[in-house]
Amino acid sequence: MMRLMAQRLTAAAFAPYGQVIEVSDAVRHFSINQGQTERYHDLAQVDTETADGRAGISIFRAKPQVHPVILSVLEHHPLGSQAFMPLSGQPYLIVVAPAGDPPTQPDQLAVFLASSQQGVNYAKGVWHHPLLALRTVCDFLVVDRMGSGHNCHEINIATWQVQIDLIEFV
Amino acid sequence: MMRLMAQRLTAAAFAPYGQVIEVSDAVRHFSINQGQTERYHDLAQVDTETADGRAGISIFRAKPQVHPVILSVLEHHPLGSQAFMPLSGQPYLIVVAPAGDPPTQPDQLAVFLASSQQGVNYAKGVWHHPLLALRTVCDFLVVDRMGSGHNCHEINIATWQVQIDLIEFV
Repeated sequence: MMRLMAQRLTAAAFAPYGQVIEVSDAVRHFSINQGQTERYHDLAQVDTETADGRAGISIFRAKPQVHPVILSVLEHHPLGSQAFMPLSGQPYLIVVAPAGDPPTQPDQLAVFLASSQQGVNYAKGVWHHPLLALRTVCDFLVVDRMGSGHNCHEINIATWQVQIDLIEFV
Repeated sequence: MMRLMAQRLTAAAFAPYGQVIEVSDAVRHFSINQGQTERYHDLAQVDTETADGRAGISIFRAKPQVHPVILSVLEHHPLGSQAFMPLSGQPYLIVVAPAGDPPTQPDQLAVFLASSQQGVNYAKGVWHHPLLALRTVCDFLVVDRMGSGHNCHEINIATWQVQIDLIEFV
């Protein structure tokens, strides 16, 4: 069994894979509605128009992982971006590898612990593990591509026997 | 002062104005990711392509209303839909009027109390009050149109002196 360390999710560290969706002084924001609301503007590159696709909104309800977390599958969406925003007030795990050819070994993976206030938008083609909720059943708002075409490729990585180390955070 | 009663938000009651974004057995849903996740699929009609627009993701941070809630403004977006999903675990108020010419009197308004688990997608052109958070500062994930063109019209309704009655819910 190989162990990978999770790192805290930041916009800079996640930049090779997409965008972090969060309230931050570092992003463009401005007051609207007579000062009643602050708009943190255009936080993700929604990229869903390939092959006549369009953006759609769904909710994913994810079962929690059993500890320790063992990776099983990576998937990617060659035709569009996919954004996840947590709705259940719980942190969750993110495992990614760069867009392009599928990764072939664990050292090509990056592992992040997202807070309950942080969403992510995977850029088109970025490899990612399916949702890794922790502790309890968690809902996520998802913005991804609706349209025809084969937009999900998977590879099985269970044989890699990778376990995520969260010891820093517990 | 005129009082309008809020009603609980349901997909059926909200249908003239857009979609409710929520987990429900009544919407299409199916299992993905080896049974680990249930996908409640394509819950809103994201309509952002008019005049070369595109869908974008933002976060709105809204100040809470002071009680009693008095309506001040209605706005509409003639070029695109606008979806709001609550992120802070709090209910909120929705005030709408049909798309088209601006409403001219209070009886054209519908008032809903949304739960913390319910988002809404305003169809293109639907008149709506800006965010009416209750109790505390609340964040909302917003999916709306990015692009050029004048996409926000407002009318001032403060002189209507409309107060929202939440007595049924407190």
